[in-house]
Amino acid sequence: MDRFYNAPGDVVDDILYAAAATAPLRVAEPDSGLRILVRSDWDKHAQGRRQVAVLSGGGAGHEPAHAGYIGEGMLTGAISGSLFASPSVEAVLAAIREVCGDAGCLLVVKNYTGDRLNFGLAAERARSEGLNVAMVIVADDVAIENAPQPRGIAGTLLVHKLSGYLAGQETPLDTIRERAGALCHQMASLGMALSAAAQPGQDAAARAPELGLGIHNETGTREVDPKSADDAMTLVLDPLRNALADRQLDGPWIAMLNDLGSCSTQEMGVLAASLLRQLGIDQVAHLIGPAPLMTSLDMHGFSLTLLPAEDDIVIALAAPTSAPGWPGLRAIQTPAHFLPDTHQDHEALVENAPQDASTSAALERIIDALRQSRKELDALDARSGDGDAGTSMQSGADAIARALQAGRLNTAALPQLFAGIGQLLSRDMGGSSGVLLSILMTAAGASLDRRGELANALAEGVEKMQAYGGARLGDRTMLDALIPAIESLQRGESLIQAAQAARDGAQATAALTHANAGRSAYVPESALKGVVDPGAEAVARVFEALSHSVS
Amino acid sequence: MDRFYNAPGDVVDDILYAAAATAPLRVAEPDSGLRILVRSDWDKHAQGRRQVAVLSGGGAGHEPAHAGYIGEGMLTGAISGSLFASPSVEAVLAAIREVCGDAGCLLVVKNYTGDRLNFGLAAERARSEGLNVAMVIVADDVAIENAPQPRGIAGTLLVHKLSGYLAGQETPLDTIRERAGALCHQMASLGMALSAAAQPGQDAAARAPELGLGIHNETGTREVDPKSADDAMTLVLDPLRNALADRQLDGPWIAMLNDLGSCSTQEMGVLAASLLRQLGIDQVAHLIGPAPLMTSLDMHGFSLTLLPAEDDIVIALAAPTSAPGWPGLRAIQTPAHFLPDTHQDHEALVENAPQDASTSAALERIIDALRQSRKELDALDARSGDGDAGTSMQSGADAIARALQAGRLNTAALPQLFAGIGQLLSRDMGGSSGVLLSILMTAAGASLDRRGELANALAEGVEKMQAYGGARLGDRTMLDALIPAIESLQRGESLIQAAQAARDGAQATAALTHANAGRSAYVPESALKGVVDPGAEAVARVFEALSHSVS
Repeated sequence: MDRFYNAPGDVVDDILYAAAATAPLRVAEPDSGLRILVRSDWDKHAQGRRQVAVLSGGGAGHEPAHAGYIGEGMLTGAISGSLFASPSVEAVLAAIREVCGDAGCLLVVKNYTGDRLNFGLAAERARSEGLNVAMVIVADDVAIENAPQPRGIAGTLLVHKLSGYLAGQETPLDTIRERAGALCHQMASLGMALSAAAQPGQDAAARAPELGLGIHNETGTREVDPKSADDAMTLVLDPLRNALADRQLDGPWIAMLNDLGSCSTQEMGVLAASLLRQLGIDQVAHLIGPAPLMTSLDMHGFSLTLLPAEDDIVIALAAPTSAPGWPGLRAIQTPAHFLPDTHQDHEALVENAPQDASTSAALERIIDALRQSRKELDALDARSGDGDAGTSMQSGADAIARALQAGRLNTAALPQLFAGIGQLLSRDMGGSSGVLLSILMTAAGASLDRRGELANALAEGVEKMQAYGGARLGDRTMLDALIPAIESLQRGESLIQAAQAARDGAQATAALTHANAGRSAYVPESALKGVVDPGAEAVARVFEALSHSVS
Repeated sequence: MDRFYNAPGDVVDDILYAAAATAPLRVAEPDSGLRILVRSDWDKHAQGRRQVAVLSGGGAGHEPAHAGYIGEGMLTGAISGSLFASPSVEAVLAAIREVCGDAGCLLVVKNYTGDRLNFGLAAERARSEGLNVAMVIVADDVAIENAPQPRGIAGTLLVHKLSGYLAGQETPLDTIRERAGALCHQMASLGMALSAAAQPGQDAAARAPELGLGIHNETGTREVDPKSADDAMTLVLDPLRNALADRQLDGPWIAMLNDLGSCSTQEMGVLAASLLRQLGIDQVAHLIGPAPLMTSLDMHGFSLTLLPAEDDIVIALAAPTSAPGWPGLRAIQTPAHFLPDTHQDHEALVENAPQDASTSAALERIIDALRQSRKELDALDARSGDGDAGTSMQSGADAIARALQAGRLNTAALPQLFAGIGQLLSRDMGGSSGVLLSILMTAAGASLDRRGELANALAEGVEKMQAYGGARLGDRTMLDALIPAIESLQRGESLIQAAQAARDGAQATAALTHANAGRSAYVPESALKGVVDPGAEAVARVFEALSHSVS
């Protein structure tokens, strides 16, 4: 299976079932075989006395068209055929009868022979029954130059929106038809696709990228070979601009960018950016989409519709509607910039920082211990991770050493010292360990600043490490040495005792073979047996270095 | 090219450019290298004094997450990394500094190590600067049973929505964090895909359909082999229901159906229908989507999120937001049905219809003429179309003959006779010609009813044929005989003269080699030379039959 369908013959009814269950619609009794959906709050004897009903429809396979455009301020109802095939005259006529009140009914029809004829005959029969029915035929596709019958494609939904808006304003039927007809002459659309649509249960025809193909998989006007999204947009924009220039139409534009089926949101975003750049961001007043609006099953392509951004059209398109498929009209502006505040905490790392000789000396012992441990730690890591634990620790130690030598670490005040080390580790040590140790130091420094109590501050830092890092005691990480050492300090024990606790904790990791987090989580259990975790080992060595400096 | 991208390295910035141009956002100066977007109407000294700022973000490639969820009532801002990679600590911290006012700032973070660490450290550093920052970690993925760190996937955007709603209500930060945390325990998500995502510039890895894969293309928990959309939905629903049952959670549910990348709207519609059927339509209170909400580039898959439809959550999710990516919450109801009105016009076709002997006789002559012409018309059509023009005309003639014999055609009143013939042709003759002739007869009948003038009524019918059919005089269609004949009648000439005009018009089609519409539009010009159009020929024969009946 390469697509999410059930039996091919069920696709349309499945889709319409979902549409009707998720919006306030009434649908024609399934046994009737007719696929008609209408606003459930529409009463042709009430609203239909003052408001024109607006109907549209056509073949299925273009969803959200047309059922998704039913709602207050847009369509009163829609008639769906089967995939890519027009609904029957009978279905259209029944829909007209269902919604057409005294104010009349407008049919919005895409310019395909089947739709024109079936909607047309239904309109004539409705008229012969005394119903006031008008039709507007949408023919916005400029793919074929001087085509006697240009196809109706995505532009159709702008006609839905305008007509529905005007109907809501209680505009008379003749005026709506005129305004809708005028809109049809103002807009032009063109599509291109990298690959064709596939009918459910069938494979897609192998076709080269094409420009100007129809929404029923009609072959494009020519094969193309775009090298990029920008290329593709140029291929679509050039003929569109020519067609609009021929009609003396000019920007700023309303642009509608339609996903023809299976483009990702990322591709559509890239195409939108390309459109704005190529047309000129100040020449695009409003954008509709990018979104799947008038699709052709899973066709991998897009269409673009342009029309001048005239005030009355903008008002109609911007008006609210309850139609779930309408994506809204988005005003375009050049993005406003701000300068992000990326300052380092200047109290933590400063020039000529105050120095405390014994603290500086302790720090140097730690630095030395870590530098000397590089090879051993890397070797341990080679058996349980990616082999760079020692190198990574050395990077951190080097960064601290440089700052210490430059006199930028305040060793006279532990909160500032911890904060400063935290900044250095996150910037220069790298890897998850760098960030985790930075979290430890930063959180401990902040706690120390608030409460002035070292052991508890470190405990608070470790809690944060666990919260963000997700590891727990026994997961073969630094925590297995850190937690016992800090708990020892919290009990008021000496640094020497704490260092012993760290050492015992590190040693115990050699027996841990099940890691839920950290470097060893992806290593087979057998490979871990007897191997001390290099992070825990590093912690033990740091505590040992510290305990020597006070012994 | 098989996807609409420019250079792979430009994808994220292109997408964010489009996002920032189409919504009221401020973005970090591009030279900063940081990808931060914030609401342009957000002032941390004004709103931020009363309202908590809500930030989220993570790797790119999940659009519309997260920039699309920025807006009043949802996110205050978002920080984007590069594709599938967490943003830097520096970027997150700068974003916090940009939006965090006195009311504080909530970070909504998906449960991935990179995001947890980078957002976590940024939060710690912000706190050490005195900013009031809280974090909620979303871990809604139930793919891996008893996972120590379940991933955060589509459910994240429900946390955005709830938090943004509460922030708008000026709820304190601690309460928002609690409520958001509680929501995280209420929901469960699971994804499946038919094929994996492809990084821009790379081919997609060939992978079997998988259940429980991550949004960064992490391998699924198991390969699956669904045979249908229903199968696929069952595969996702079963573990989800088990996970929720384990937590004692029960429906009715809010369901969120997320397109992971390149599903068509049709596929998503089929999946939505399947979901409603399998879960039970009365067990789904609300649906979010189907739509691309938390995507994984062009992954061909979907995810489903379920949570109990509790009142306070429903209120928060249903509240309006200006965030362009939020698809809204749709109430689910069993579709309401109506019986479509498909009655035929009973005045046109009735039992024991009044008869006028000479009109009935004329009609019979026409029927005979058409029946006798079948072979010749089919032969003409074989050279210019699909070879069934005669057969099709005979079907129409047969239908009229049957109704006439059954006494169901009112030959005593032309308006009813025309309307009746119109109904017979559309129902029984088939093809475009059937609908076109039905339009002619229906419109002419209605005109005759209004104005009582035969020639002008026929002319009105022909106008409608042209309007709906799109052909014009000279297009090698029936019109080439019809129009001259009717114009002759309008001039007050005799039926014999009209028949001659039809004959001349039909004969002239043999010289027409360029067809813009109708059966011959797809036939090479050379093939048409010397061939009379079968439709025009049929019209000439009908007029000739009529003229004989009065001669």
